[in-house]
Amino acid sequence: MTRQELIQQIREKQSFLCVGLDTDIDKMPQSLMKRVKKEYEEEELTFGMLLEFNISIIDATAPYCVAYKPNLAFYEAYGMEGIAAFEGTVEYLQENYPHHLIIADAKRGDIGNTSKMYAKTFFEQYGVDALTIAPYMGEDSVTPFLGYKDKWVVLLALTSNKGSHDFQLTEDKTGERLFEKVLRQSQQWGNDENMMYVVGATQGQMFQDVRRLAPTHFLLVPGVGAQGGSLHEVCQYGMTKDCGLLVNSSRGIIYASSDDNFAEVAAEKARELQQQMAQELQAIL
Amino acid sequence: MTRQELIQQIREKQSFLCVGLDTDIDKMPQSLMKRVKKEYEEEELTFGMLLEFNISIIDATAPYCVAYKPNLAFYEAYGMEGIAAFEGTVEYLQENYPHHLIIADAKRGDIGNTSKMYAKTFFEQYGVDALTIAPYMGEDSVTPFLGYKDKWVVLLALTSNKGSHDFQLTEDKTGERLFEKVLRQSQQWGNDENMMYVVGATQGQMFQDVRRLAPTHFLLVPGVGAQGGSLHEVCQYGMTKDCGLLVNSSRGIIYASSDDNFAEVAAEKARELQQQMAQELQAIL
Repeated sequence: MTRQELIQQIREKQSFLCVGLDTDIDKMPQSLMKRVKKEYEEEELTFGMLLEFNISIIDATAPYCVAYKPNLAFYEAYGMEGIAAFEGTVEYLQENYPHHLIIADAKRGDIGNTSKMYAKTFFEQYGVDALTIAPYMGEDSVTPFLGYKDKWVVLLALTSNKGSHDFQLTEDKTGERLFEKVLRQSQQWGNDENMMYVVGATQGQMFQDVRRLAPTHFLLVPGVGAQGGSLHEVCQYGMTKDCGLLVNSSRGIIYASSDDNFAEVAAEKARELQQQMAQELQAIL
Repeated sequence: MTRQELIQQIREKQSFLCVGLDTDIDKMPQSLMKRVKKEYEEEELTFGMLLEFNISIIDATAPYCVAYKPNLAFYEAYGMEGIAAFEGTVEYLQENYPHHLIIADAKRGDIGNTSKMYAKTFFEQYGVDALTIAPYMGEDSVTPFLGYKDKWVVLLALTSNKGSHDFQLTEDKTGERLFEKVLRQSQQWGNDENMMYVVGATQGQMFQDVRRLAPTHFLLVPGVGAQGGSLHEVCQYGMTKDCGLLVNSSRGIIYASSDDNFAEVAAEKARELQQQMAQELQAIL
C-alpha cells in the first residue's frame, strides 16, 4: 500500500485506528470453542480458534480502522497451528479487506543475509504490507527490508514500555538521544514512503521532539488503552497535515468482552476510538 | 544447561565451537534431494530436506563442537515446513546430543507481555537452552526470559556487522558507548549464569573493552570465517580462565562443500576449528 492510499483510507473512514491482533485463546469465550469444535477437525482446534476469533474481530471492526497488526509472538506461541492461523488471517484480510494495511509486528533485525531472509518471508511469502524492525544492529540490518515496492519498514524509535528509558533516551556528547539518532540516521536509508516509526503513546510531549526530526513520516503509536497513553495528547503533539499517525489498540478492543458478544463489544470500542479520531481529524481535513 | 556443565563440555571436547545451522535448501547437494524423495511424502519434501541436512551435519560435527545455533530466519522462510524442521532439529539434538547447548538465534525482544510469550514459546514449547535477544527496548523486554532455570539470554552487545557502528558505538556524555551501557545495565537484570553477550569476531581489540565490563560472562562470537574475524584475536582479547567464549561458524562449516560429501567436509572444517581451539585452550586449561 502506498502512502497516498493510506492517507486516502484515513480520509474516507475518518479513522487512523490500527487494531492489534494479539490473539490469545485463554481470553476467548466458551461459545467460540463450541462453534469451532463443530467446524474444524480435532487436530485443528487451536488453528480454528485463532482464525475464527480473528475473523469475527476483523468483520466487526473493519469499518472503523485502517490497519491490522497481528503480533507474531502470540501466533508463534501456538506452534505450527499458530503460524497457520497468522497466515490464514493475512489471507482473509487480503481477500476481504484489501484496503486495510497489514502490519506484522515481529520486531526482526539481523545481519544483512539474515534480514534478507526475513524480508522474503514476510513481504513475499506472507505478503504483509509492513513489518516492525529493531534498529540496534544498524543500517545493513534494516535496508534489506526497504527494497520492496509499496512495503513498509516500521522502525522502533521510542517505544511505549518502561524499558524505553534504559537506552533510547541516552544522550550522546552533542545532547542527541539515541531515539533521535535512530530517527535521523535511518532517513538516509529510507523515506516517508517506505518507512514509519514506532513511538509509544505513553511518551506524551516527546512527540514534539520526534516531529522535529521526522516531520512527515507516519508514526505507529501503541500504548493507547491498556498501557495508559492519551489519544488527544498524541494528536496534539504528533499529528501532521496528512494525519501521519496510526494509533494501535489491541487488548482494549479485542478483549473488551470475553462473552459471546465479544465481537460486538470490540466493534463498539473500535467505533468509540474512531469517533474520537474523527474529532481530532477535524483539525486537519 | 548450567554454566558449570558448559565449561565441563568445553574441557572434555577441547572445543568452544558453536555450529550455526543457517540451513538453506539452495545450497544442498542433489544427492540429498534424491534420498529425501524416497523417504518423505511429496508434501513434506522441504521439511525432509531441512531436517535431513541438519541431522547429517549434526552427526558429523557433534564431536567437535559444544553448541548448535539454528537461525530462525532460515526456518521461517520455509513457512510451516521450516518451523517443523526447526522443531525436529531441536528434538533430534535433545534426544541424541543432550550435552550440546541449543541456541535459538531469533533476536527477539518486545514489551513485557509479548516477551513473556516468546519466552514461553522458545523455552517451554521448543525447549531450547538459549535465545538471542535485542536490547533496544530495555529491561522489561529482557527480564521475562530470565526467570527460567538453566536457560540463557544471549543479549546483543557489539555485533559483527558493519551496521554495528551506527548506534552501538555512540558515546554518551561520559564517554560510555552504547554497547558498554548494554553490558553494564543488563548486569542488574541477569548474571553470568543466565546471560551471555553477542560480540562479533570482527571487533578485534574491542574484546578488551567488553571484558572490562563483563569479565566472567560467556560471549557468543559470530563472524569467524565468512565474515572475516580472527579466532586467535578473539581468544587473545576475550578468553577467560573458564574459556568464556562460544565461537560460532555457520557458512564456513555447513556449506564448505555442496557435493555429496558435504557432511564429511563439514566435519573436517569443524575439526580444524576444534584443533585451533584446543591450542588456544592450552593457555588456560
